[in-house]
This record gives sequence, structure tokens and C-alpha cells, in this order.
Amino acid sequence: MTLLSGTFARGGAAAAVSDDAWFRALLDVEAALARAAARTGVVPTTAADAVAAACAHPERLDLATVVARAADAGNPVPPLVRVLQDAVGERDAVAVHVGATSQDVLDTALLLMARNAVAAVDADLAAAADTTADLAHVHRDDVLAGRTLMQQALPTTFGLKAAGWLAGLDGARLRLAEVVASLPVQYGGAVGTLAASGGAGVVVRAALAEELQLTSTAVPWFTVRLPIADLAGALGAAAGVVATVAVDVVLLAQTEVAEVVEVGEGRGGSSAMPHKRNPVAAISARACARRAPGLVATLLSAMEQEHERAAGAWHSEWPTLTELLSTVGSAASWLAESLRGLRPDPPRMAATAAAAAEGPLAGALAEALAPTLGKGAAHDAAAAAVREARDGGRPLAEVVAARTDVDVRAVLAAGRPDVGEAGAQVDTALAEHAALTEGRQ
Amino acid sequence: MTLLSGTFARGGAAAAVSDDAWFRALLDVEAALARAAARTGVVPTTAADAVAAACAHPERLDLATVVARAADAGNPVPPLVRVLQDAVGERDAVAVHVGATSQDVLDTALLLMARNAVAAVDADLAAAADTTADLAHVHRDDVLAGRTLMQQALPTTFGLKAAGWLAGLDGARLRLAEVVASLPVQYGGAVGTLAASGGAGVVVRAALAEELQLTSTAVPWFTVRLPIADLAGALGAAAGVVATVAVDVVLLAQTEVAEVVEVGEGRGGSSAMPHKRNPVAAISARACARRAPGLVATLLSAMEQEHERAAGAWHSEWPTLTELLSTVGSAASWLAESLRGLRPDPPRMAATAAAAAEGPLAGALAEALAPTLGKGAAHDAAAAAVREARDGGRPLAEVVAARTDVDVRAVLAAGRPDVGEAGAQVDTALAEHAALTEGRQ
Amino acid sequence: MTLLSGTFARGGAAAAVSDDAWFRALLDVEAALARAAARTGVVPTTAADAVAAACAHPERLDLATVVARAADAGNPVPPLVRVLQDAVGERDAVAVHVGATSQDVLDTALLLMARNAVAAVDADLAAAADTTADLAHVHRDDVLAGRTLMQQALPTTFGLKAAGWLAGLDGARLRLAEVVASLPVQYGGAVGTLAASGGAGVVVRAALAEELQLTSTAVPWFTVRLPIADLAGALGAAAGVVATVAVDVVLLAQTEVAEVVEVGEGRGGSSAMPHKRNPVAAISARACARRAPGLVATLLSAMEQEHERAAGAWHSEWPTLTELLSTVGSAASWLAESLRGLRPDPPRMAATAAAAAEGPLAGALAEALAPTLGKGAAHDAAAAAVREARDGGRPLAEVVAARTDVDVRAVLAAGRPDVGEAGAQVDTALAEHAALTEGRQ
Amino acid sequence: MTLLSGTFARGGAAAAVSDDAWFRALLDVEAALARAAARTGVVPTTAADAVAAACAHPERLDLATVVARAADAGNPVPPLVRVLQDAVGERDAVAVHVGATSQDVLDTALLLMARNAVAAVDADLAAAADTTADLAHVHRDDVLAGRTLMQQALPTTFGLKAAGWLAGLDGARLRLAEVVASLPVQYGGAVGTLAASGGAGVVVRAALAEELQLTSTAVPWFTVRLPIADLAGALGAAAGVVATVAVDVVLLAQTEVAEVVEVGEGRGGSSAMPHKRNPVAAISARACARRAPGLVATLLSAMEQEHERAAGAWHSEWPTLTELLSTVGSAASWLAESLRGLRPDPPRMAATAAAAAEGPLAGALAEALAPTLGKGAAHDAAAAAVREARDGGRPLAEVVAARTDVDVRAVLAAGRPDVGEAGAQVDTALAEHAALTEGRQ
Repeated sequence: MTLLSGTFARGGAAAAVSDDAWFRALLDVEAALARAAARTGVVPTTAADAVAAACAHPERLDLATVVARAADAGNPVPPLVRVLQDAVGERDAVAVHVGATSQDVLDTALLLMARNAVAAVDADLAAAADTTADLAHVHRDDVLAGRTLMQQALPTTFGLKAAGWLAGLDGARLRLAEVVASLPVQYGGAVGTLAASGGAGVVVRAALAEELQLTSTAVPWFTVRLPIADLAGALGAAAGVVATVAVDVVLLAQTEVAEVVEVGEGRGGSSAMPHKRNPVAAISARACARRAPGLVATLLSAMEQEHERAAGAWHSEWPTLTELLSTVGSAASWLAESLRGLRPDPPRMAATAAAAAEGPLAGALAEALAPTLGKGAAHDAAAAAVREARDGGRPLAEVVAARTDVDVRAVLAAGRPDVGEAGAQVDTALAEHAALTEGRQ
Repeated sequence: MTLLSGTFARGGAAAAVSDDAWFRALLDVEAALARAAARTGVVPTTAADAVAAACAHPERLDLATVVARAADAGNPVPPLVRVLQDAVGERDAVAVHVGATSQDVLDTALLLMARNAVAAVDADLAAAADTTADLAHVHRDDVLAGRTLMQQALPTTFGLKAAGWLAGLDGARLRLAEVVASLPVQYGGAVGTLAASGGAGVVVRAALAEELQLTSTAVPWFTVRLPIADLAGALGAAAGVVATVAVDVVLLAQTEVAEVVEVGEGRGGSSAMPHKRNPVAAISARACARRAPGLVATLLSAMEQEHERAAGAWHSEWPTLTELLSTVGSAASWLAESLRGLRPDPPRMAATAAAAAEGPLAGALAEALAPTLGKGAAHDAAAAAVREARDGGRPLAEVVAARTDVDVRAVLAAGRPDVGEAGAQVDTALAEHAALTEGRQ
Repeated sequence: MTLLSGTFARGGAAAAVSDDAWFRALLDVEAALARAAARTGVVPTTAADAVAAACAHPERLDLATVVARAADAGNPVPPLVRVLQDAVGERDAVAVHVGATSQDVLDTALLLMARNAVAAVDADLAAAADTTADLAHVHRDDVLAGRTLMQQALPTTFGLKAAGWLAGLDGARLRLAEVVASLPVQYGGAVGTLAASGGAGVVVRAALAEELQLTSTAVPWFTVRLPIADLAGALGAAAGVVATVAVDVVLLAQTEVAEVVEVGEGRGGSSAMPHKRNPVAAISARACARRAPGLVATLLSAMEQEHERAAGAWHSEWPTLTELLSTVGSAASWLAESLRGLRPDPPRMAATAAAAAEGPLAGALAEALAPTLGKGAAHDAAAAAVREARDGGRPLAEVVAARTDVDVRAVLAAGRPDVGEAGAQVDTALAEHAALTEGRQ
Repeated sequence: MTLLSGTFARGGAAAAVSDDAWFRALLDVEAALARAAARTGVVPTTAADAVAAACAHPERLDLATVVARAADAGNPVPPLVRVLQDAVGERDAVAVHVGATSQDVLDTALLLMARNAVAAVDADLAAAADTTADLAHVHRDDVLAGRTLMQQALPTTFGLKAAGWLAGLDGARLRLAEVVASLPVQYGGAVGTLAASGGAGVVVRAALAEELQLTSTAVPWFTVRLPIADLAGALGAAAGVVATVAVDVVLLAQTEVAEVVEVGEGRGGSSAMPHKRNPVAAISARACARRAPGLVATLLSAMEQEHERAAGAWHSEWPTLTELLSTVGSAASWLAESLRGLRPDPPRMAATAAAAAEGPLAGALAEALAPTLGKGAAHDAAAAAVREARDGGRPLAEVVAARTDVDVRAVLAAGRPDVGEAGAQVDTALAEHAALTEGRQ
């Protein structure tokens, strides 16, 4: 663990793209390829078994040599293949790396790691979603001031706000699930013809896909990087959802707003200021999530790849995708913590919303004036009344009460906080979340 | 048309996000909302009809005022609503903008435009894909040198190369189609509670979605921007596929490679150099596609939106998404032109591949030596033979023929170009394309 | 003017990259090149005069043809050269485009436009800075709550806050000025050898640079795009400064904070909510500024250019750089408007700061306890006192007053708001601004 | 060292941002702050000496605790301060972290690390530049085909090509040097007022800057991130220059071009293809450089920071800037290696240029026809002659020789390769490099 990893390599996703995970994934692919080649009769089963056995014990392999030679080789697979060949001996080496090129193994391993990392991201997003669902349920009808363009607008409920977060978190999970379900195997040999697969390349590809529970493809996708783009897009979207929830938490936790507090063991202090309670988890979620868009752009830029194997763009994906997985996973993990520690303050919300009641009142006045003045002029007249109240330091209700051109009583009644169909919408969102959660079990 | 629009606003997508398109989309939403509100009994049908009629004739509306006031209002919807109210008169104004907030109309209109623009992108991608399928079919078995890391590697076929492009183009289309099919309506009123929809907000939302053939939602997605992220991701992926095909065309058209020429009426000349034939369409496709990743990053960064309506991030989406649609559409359009004008040169390909035959030969030598030397040392010995041939300026075959440690005849035979299962893979890719094309008709 | 241009193409920068500006810049370069070639004896002065005369009257040139043919030619220069040759006739055509290639003219013209656009950006930034300096001066000693991590921390002054903005705005201006002062001419002929410049290419380059008040270079910078990167970096930095000031305005204008109001003629209303006062200019500044980072990334990605002229990356710079100039200019223009309309509310600031006084008080308590408890435990004890006060709903001063382990009177005195050296720092920042302003006059 | 670090954390820059480097930098700042506070009389010299002594021996400090608590604290400084206080004891703790806030120490430390890392980047860029200067010198007059839009155009020299690279590398170095020379100290205390610095804050800031050889500032730059943007911009520009040189190497090394080979001990082999010689170093340089633009965009997006300390954007800078330094350093390191191993092949260049001679010849023909046909039609006629030659499979010279409308002998003479002022430009570039190198010594 390094100085920054507590913040930026938090949660299971970071572990799923560690060096250990790289080796495990590379060896899983080589083992699966040996098995697939044996199943399809390309190599003897005994040789394949030997390869699979060697791959099952990375601790017995000379991986230090792989690390040492990876950069010179251009990627880690050539030295790994050599190490595997040495490990199984001459006779069984025939089942090592059958018909494959480095990119076959590296791309497939990268997607295996991505699948594991996304599972960790999903677990954190699911935790965040479940907590959010609880918040939406508990605070279904707690009124707070809706805020548009950072100004108090009309009343809404904390339940509806949470239901919006929930729809986003579940939506992000659905996108990640779709992408993971369609991740393909890479298998084409040196230039994609499968020429080194003994005439059984297409069959081996299908078997390899089956072994690893990946999808198969009509042709290799060497320089057509849609699977990487899919991961990038879905991870970028997930980061965006995390960020939008986190910024809401940070804004609601502002001293002046104080509608939520984020509680965390040993968190939120300040070296210079003992009185502060910083929403550290939400802030860290934002910090992690903000790293995603630039990484996504790097991956999309890297899609322009040359001929049968790209000279640089391909390589740039490895640290970029792993870091994207790690930072989005960290963001999700922090958000789950933040929401778990979130303490909404409904009385405070209600008090602020009441003070903000001039919003509905102005709307009611505009509506009442519309038949007489026309919709446009009525709107202007209501805005003028608001200005008059503000300039005079009086409640808007008082200004309204002085009018003779409307039914004051009706306007005041209509101006009472009205959260419309907030509750019903919360219920639907919770039902959708429940259905998703059930579908996953 | 402006100086750069011939290059960067080419094809139908650019037109689908023009000013005219903006107005058409905004008015389509207002008209549909009026109809939806009438269908659900919230406003009189006569009023809704009046609104719909007004919306059908933008040329009769005072849109200049909308343009003039949009910036001050923060977005174009408030002045548009005022203009519509004026157009239909007091009585029917009740059916204008029913229960809606600016973001309801603007977001929904933006997605309508995006859907139209994506249809144009898809048409250009489909044209490119069909041409590519023809290339793959015609050149199914034409051998050319596969190139990895920009070095000649082993032989493949132009058919397989084209099949790879085809899979990418069709893959990009599928992703765009999925995104477009799931685009949702936006409808929530000022802060999402539907409080101004007379108790029928949820029903109006569903009806509005139906009117516009969009999906409905459990809650508004005001600051949860997944639909925008979906569009961004799929468009970025499409741009990446276009770029990777275009860079292949540019590389194959290099003077020294000359395996394809891009022919275009009145194209490719140079002011200083009359002898040049520049692949202008492929170059322009690359130029347009390269603008996408940065725009995608901007949209993903904009996902962090505050409370019930964002103060800036939301607004930044409008020019960014429309430009992304326009530039990806232009890229697809240029690529379709480039491929239509592509003239492959199979004899040249074959000649280069033959000269490159030392690749397979070296591989055959390595394989023949493996039983004696072990797989690793055999690889080294073959590499040494290649160096010996190069340093001596002799064909590798001659160096091989001089060896006594292998069955020379077998090695030379095995060293003949072998494109493995290239043909079969092309056939599968073509079948998948045909199935997709049929499914679309 | 289009629907979005009131927001996103505001201010002088947008006009400086219009189609008209493109033509003016391209013709200015061709005219200057003719003059430079004549000065250095490469072409007759009469011919150069004819070219310069033709360039001075774009309205007499067939620019529609240039627009129509630019895309096919790959860039607008080839058709423009043809049009100029036709305009001046056979005899004087010798002075058209002397020794040049399209990129010479296009790159140089692009930098001329950039220089003009940056001048407009600078004017808006200067206006913003001057207004900010006034704010810093007027409110030099007005206390407000400093806020870290969105939590009230210790008191500072609005003057110091404004001085921070000022340093940023002036810093951004300095960076832009440095970049503009070093913008180089592009002149190398087809591949950079100056072979078509009659042996006088180096001299012509220097003369051309002088004509246009650009710097000259040792070699052409065809595919070494440092000048573009410099512009991108400085514009991106300027956008960042605008954004950080704008977000402060938006945050301070929040209903719950209300320490500033942004006043603007006919601005800030809401279609659904007549009572709102949105800080439209600051919001729009943010929206414009947020588009910059993605555009900068596109320009930096485009730096990887091939051989003597890039096949796509070069072209992608044109719309990207012009748009970056336009959006940063718009951001600066909006910010200048926002600041001009900014109405700080010092009494409100003071009231909030007083309520926030528990911060300094907690600090004073910690300091007083440190000699007895040690610095660390003292900090914890102060934090505990804050919690005790909060949980009990009492002022912190009351909790402190009850302690017997400190000199309560001294702690309460030390806990009074202290803005340290805020004033002196404001004075220094204002002096630096004055020096910069003077230096520019 | 991890699996990918041989490629992506190569060279000195990566080491300069390691965990060790973080601690060293943080402690250097705390030590310098203690000394500065003592020099200005704020704390006793004995206490400052104790702090400095503690900071000089990180191995004696409980840094594991700092790592463990950094995430919860929101950043590593609070736990580090506590550890330092414990290390020096009650009496001397007064000299720990004098008047500072976490951001003071963290920002200043980050810039110290950046300065060291940039020095490493500069060393690698300087090595690359020196090698490039040698190449330009040795191959000053070696003719090769200039290539525009990836098509052979007119002849140039390898010397001029290398001189272009050189100007770029030196230009990137100059920009980095300017940025490093202006990096400022951060010192403001909790909210920037210097209230905890005993009235001597401005003086301490200046002394601290002097201690660390950084510049001082009028006000803190807490949320005005120009220094970070400067680093980002200059590093992004450097990456772009590395990428453009690297892509040239990769293109020139293509099998079909073969004008350079990149030689490297134990490099460039392929697991499946023993005959390949991949330019691994240039490819890796490209891979590293391509990661920069996205990271720069993240840093620019992070410039929008709130109030006196940002809630997330600030934090996102730490991993992003350190990684940017690391990847650009790796790119520079790889490029230096690539160029060191570069073996140009002048005879091959000459042969290709000769075969490409139809370019100049067509130009000569166009010029000869211009007086008769007019410049435009002459251009068309020359292009037609090129087509005729190509279609007939004849040398262009033969087609020209058959013409009766020009002085054939003169055209053929004028059509000989002409590299214009290539040599003189190389000499100027070399002189500028020498001056820069001298200026640095």
C-alpha cells in the first residue's frame, strides 16, 4: 500500500488489477488455451494438463524474469511463454501458447481482469444503491427545498432526491453488466489467420471462449477495440453517476445548508481547525471519479490502431484501463461509505423549505393573475411582487395579502408547499430497484 | 456553409443538429406535450390542437426573439414558451408547456435531435459497411502481408482485413442502435415532483414518451446524465472504429506500400506537387474522428451536476453533444466515400507478400529445429538465420537450404504462405453482416 | 447568430475566428508573402503590389469557389491560390504563394487569427481583473467565513478572496501574452527545404515574419506543433481560472449563503419560478470554460504528426483551436459581465462569520490546552468541546467558559475573528495588478 | 518494480514521484518551514533545528501510521504533523508546521517533486536532443523523400528532418525550464490570511520560498491552480514532441520504407515471428506519450476549485500530476534510447528519393508549361502527364521527353532533386542547439 492508495486504490477493483492479478489472468488464459486445444484435439491432453498445472502455481514460476524482460519484449507475454515452456519441459511445451500471438493472451487476460474488477465496482455500487434505497424509503416524504442552478426553487422531498440517485446507480450497474456479459475472447494468431492453429483455429477460439466464459467472435478484434471502448464508456458513466451523487452530498453538507452530515470513524478532522467535520468520503469519491473522463478519452484516442497490431496505442491501454477500473472502483467504494455514514436532518430540511415558501407562493400568484393579465404578464407581475417583498424586507405573503386583483385566500392556499407526485415516483424507483436486486440473486 | 463545414460538418448528422433542427425539435416536444396533456385530460383538446398547430409552423413564430433572448434567459426555452403563448392566445395558452420546466423540453429536444443525427451517422456507417462487405467478398482470398507493430509479419488476406473493419463498423452500429432505442423522455416540472401537472404528471410523462417514441422513466433524470453518457460512449466508439479503418487506408496508400489507392473526383491534388494522389477522404475521416475523444471527455466531466439542475455543466452539453454528433457523422460520411473510392491492388499485395515470405520460412525453421534444440533455442536459431541472410544480402531460403540439421525440403514447403482459416472467418463475418442488414430491413 | 451563439460564441474572440476572419487572415498571409518576396528580390514589386491589392479586397474575389472546393482539396489554400492567380492575371501570378505550400499559409493564418482572438480574450480578462481589483479594494477588510472543503473554516476577507481571483486573472493574461509574443511564422515550401524559394527562402521567411510581426524559426515547424500546444495550454489555464472564479460566484450566490447577488438586465428569471434570481453570467462562464479541457486534449493528441505533413491530425486542429478560442473568449466575456454585476453583501458576510466564530475559538482552546496535554491531545480535546456544544445545542463559548483547565478569558479573546495579514496581502496583489496594467499601457 | 513499470515508469521521473519521494518532499517542506520560521523569529532556533533534524531521518519516523491514516484524514499531512510533533517532543513541537495548513505543505511538496521529476525528464530530453543533433550533423546532406499526407512528395534531407525533431525537443525543454523556474511556494494558513503565523506570515512565506528556491506570491494560490496548469501544459507539449518524433521513427522503420532501423540489445523479437525487428523503444515512447493528453485534461478540469480549498478537485491532482510526470519521463527516456539505437540507411533513402523523382519532374514540367498555358492549366497538364506515365507503366521522364511544347532538356535538368536551403537550415538549428546546451552548462 502506498501513500495515495488509501484514497485512490480503495476497494476491490484496485486489487483486481494488481500485479498478482495480471499474472493470474495471463496464466488463466494460457491454461484455458491449453485445455481448449486439447479438447479440440490440437494437442495431447497430457501436455495440456501439464501446462494447466504449471499455470495453477505461479509461485513456482520464474516470474521475476518475466517482469525483467517484459519491457524489452514489448509486452509480458513472450518472456512468460518462455518461462512456461521451460517449466513444462520439451515434451509438453507443444501445449503452451497454442497457435497464439502475444496479443491473444494479453487482450484476453486484460478482459478477465476487467471482469473481476467490474464485479468489485458493481459490489460497491450495489452497496451504495441499497443504502440509497433505504434513504429514499425512510425519507420518502421529508420535504426539502429543491435547488436549481444552485438557487432554492420549489419544494421536493429527500426521498425523491435519493430516488434520482438510486436510478443513476442502478443504471450504471446495468450498463456495466451488459458490457461484461459481452466481453469477447481474443484469438487469431500472429496476424489473425489462425494459421498456426493446425486448421482448428475457429474451433479452438470457441472452446477458449467457453473455458473462460467469454463470447467468441467471427474474426479477431486486434485493432478494432470496441470491447475496450465499451468498458471505458460504462466505467466513465459510472464515475459520472458517483460524482453527481457525491457533489450533492458535499453541497447538502455545507455549513450553511447542513441538511446532511457524513459521519465516519476517525474522519473529517482538520489539522488547523478542530471544529470542522469534512465529508471526507464524498470528497474522496469526487476526487476519484474526476479522474475517469481523461482516462476514457485516452482509451478512445487509442482506438486508432494500425494494421494487424498497433505500434503504441495498444500498449497505452494497459495502464489506462487498469487505472480507470481502479479509480472508478475507488469512487464507488468511497460513495458507499459516504452514504452509509449519511445522517439526513429532516427538521432542518423542513425549516429551510418553509423559509423558501415564497417560490410556490409566487407561482400561485402568477397563476391567479394569468386569466386577467395573460400568462406572460402575470409571470412578470409575480416576479415584481417578489422584488417588492425582498426590497422591503417583508414576507412575500404579506405583499400578496395586500393585493386586490386576486383571491388572496386562494393564492395563499395554493402557495403552500406541494410536492406533487414525489411519493409515487419514489415508490416506482424503489420497485425497480427491488426488481433489479432480485434479478441478480 | 462555412469554410470548414465541407470537411467537418459533412453528411446528414450536421444538418440534424442545425439551428433549424433545434427549433423543430423544441417545437415537436412542446406539441407532443400539449397532445399528451390533452390525451390525459389535463388540458382541453382544442387548446392542445392550437398549440400543436402553432408548433407545426415555425416560420410563423417570432423565433428571432427566441434567439435574441436565449442567452439572457439561460436557455432558449423561456423565450420560446413566451412566443408560443403569444402565438396561441390567452385561451389556449393553458396547453403550452404544461407542467414543464425548461430542462424537460430542452433535454427531450436534444435527444430527439440526437436520434435523428444518429440515424444519419448510421446511414453513413451502413454504407461504409456494405462497401467493406463487398471488398471482403471480392478480395476474400487475396494475400497480402500482415503487419504488426508496423513491420511485415506473416501473410493474411485483404478479405480478412476488410472483415475486421466490417465487424467494427457493424459493432459500432449495434451500439448506436441500442442507445437510441433506450433514449428517455425528460419530464418532471421545476424540481422533479410533477407538482404543476395537476396530479397527472406520471401519466403525462408516459403519454409524452409514447408521442415521441422515447422510453419513460421512474423519476426525472435531471442531474443523472446517463442518456448523454450513453450517446457519448457509443459515438466515441464509432469514431474510434472509423479512425482505425481510416488509418489502415492511409497506411496502405503510402507510396511505398501502394496496396490501395483512394480515387475521388477532383480530389487529392496538391498545389505545390502535381504528382501526388492524397487519400483525402480517409485523411478527413481521421481528422473528424480524432475530435471525438475530447468531446466525450467533456460530456463525461459534465455528469457531475448539482441538486435538481446544474449550474453550468448542463449547459456545456449542448454545443458539445451536437458537435460530437456532427463530427462523428462527418467521419462516417468521409469513410463511406473513401471506401467507395478504394481501389485495392491485389498483384501488388501478392508481390509484397511473396517478398515477405521470410516470415513463414523463419517460423518453419524454428519449428523444425524445436525437437532438437528445444522451443526457445530453436526460435533464437531461426532469428540468427534471418540475420545471417540479411547481413549477407541473400534470400533466407538460400541460408535455410544450406543447413544440414533440418529436413530442408519440408521446411521450405512449410514456409510457403499460409493464410490458415482466413477465408472461413471472412465468410462468417459476411454472414453476420448479412443477418444484421436483413434484420434492419 | 445562431441559437447557442449568444451563450457560447460571446465576446470578440468568436468574431476573430469567423469565416470572414479566416479569409482575411489567409489573404493577409498571401499579401505579406508577396511583399516579403518582393523585398527580398524574389519577385517583381509590381507583381507583389498586384497580389497585395487583390488580397485587400476579398469582396471582389470568388471566395464561394474556395468554400466549395476546400474539402476536396484537403484544405482551403489550393483553391484560394487558384482564385488569386486568376484575379491578378498571368503576369503577376508569379508573386502569388511564392515558394509556399498550403501549410505555410494555413498555419500562419491560423496563428494570426489566434493572436486576434487572444487579444479579445485578454480584453475580457482585463475587464474582469479590473472589476475584481475594485472589489478587492472596496472590500479589503470585509470579513467573511473562509470555507475549505465546502465547510466554514476560519474568517478571511472578501478582499483577500477577490485578490486571489485577481492574481489568477492576471496570471492567465501574462501566460497568454507570452504565448502570443512568441508565435512563429510557418514557411518551408512543400517539404521544408525552401527549394521553391529561389535560394532566398530563409530570407523570405524572416521578411514574412517581420511583415506579420511574428517570430521566425530555424526550420519549419510543420509537424512539431509547439505553437499550437502553447496556445492550447495558455487557453486551458485561462479557462480554469475563469471557472474557479465563476464557481465561487455561484457558490456565494446560493440562497443559503447569499453573500453576493449577480445583477443583470433581463437576466436570471425562470419560466416556472418567478421568484428566482439565477447568476446567469457566472453559470454561463462556467459552461463555456468547461468545454476547454477536452479541446486542449484534442490539440495535444494531435501533436503526433507524421513526416513532413500529417494525414488528419493537422486538419483536426482547425475547428478545435478556433472553438477553444471562441469558448474561452466567451467564458471570459461572461465572467466580466458577472463581476460587473456582482453585489457583495458585507453585513450578511459578517453575520455568517460571527456565527462561524466557533472555528477560531476551538483553535484558541486547542492552543491553550497544548502546554498541558500536548499538541495532539489538545486538538482532540478542542474537537470534543465542539461536539459537546453541538450536541447540546449550546454556543461553544459557553462550553469553553465552563472549563477550569484553561485561562478562559484569554481563550475567548484569542478566539475572536482574526484575519491576520489579509489586508497587507490584498495591497500587494493590487500593486501587482496596477503594475501589470501600467506596463500594458 | 511491477509488471508494467519497465515500460510506463521508466527513467528518473518515475522515481522522483515515488512514495519515498513523497515523504522526502513533505519532510523537506516541514524542515524548511521550521527554518524559515526560526529565521524570521517566529519560533526558537533550537526548536527549528530539532524539527529539521527529525525531518532529515524519515527512517526514524513512524511513516506507516501516516500511510494508514492519510485517507481518513483526507490527505497525508495531518498524520505526518502528528508524527513529527511526537518525534520532536512537546517543547520543540512549536516549530512543527508553523502557521501552516495541510495544503501549504502538500502543494509545496508536490511542486518540489515536480521540479525533481522535470529535471529527470529534461535529462532524457537533452540526451535525445544531443543524439538528434549528431544525426542532423552526420546526415546533413543525405537526401530522402519528403512525405506529406503519407505520400512521397519532394526530396528533403534526413538532416533537415532531424533538425525539425531537434527544434521540437529543445523547444519542449525550454518550456519545461520556464515553468520550473517560476514554481511558487504555497503558504497561507487555514484560509489564506496567515492568521496563525504570528503577524510574520508574509515574511515567513518569502523565507520559505528562499529556503526551497521557489518563487513567492502576493497571496496564496489555494484554488487558483496556474502552477499545476503550467506543469500540465509544458508536460503535455513535451509528450507531443516525443510522440511526433517517435511516430516518424516507427514510420521510417516500416518494412516497406526501411530507411532506419532501431537497434536495441535483446529487443524487438516476436514470440510467433522470429524474423521481426520491432522498434520497441519508439513504440514504447509513443505508448507513454499518448497517455499525456487525457491526464492534462484531468488537471485542467480540476482547476475549477471551490472557495479556499476544493472538495475533490484538489485531491484529484495528486495521482494525476505524478503520473503525468512519470509517463512523460518514460516517453522521453524511451525516445532517448530509440534515437541512440537508430541506424539510418542513407543509400536506401537515396534510392527511394531517386525513384520518387517524378515529383520534382512534374513540378518542372508545370513550371515550363506555365508561360504558355497559364499557371493553373499547366498544373493540370503536369498532373495529366503523371497519370499517363503511371497508366502506361513508363518513367515520367520518358513521357516528358516525348513532349514538343517545352524545352525538354531544361525540364529534365530542373527536375533533378533539389533540397534547396536544407543544409543552411540544419546549420542554424544546430547552432541554436549548441547555444542552448552551452547556456545550460
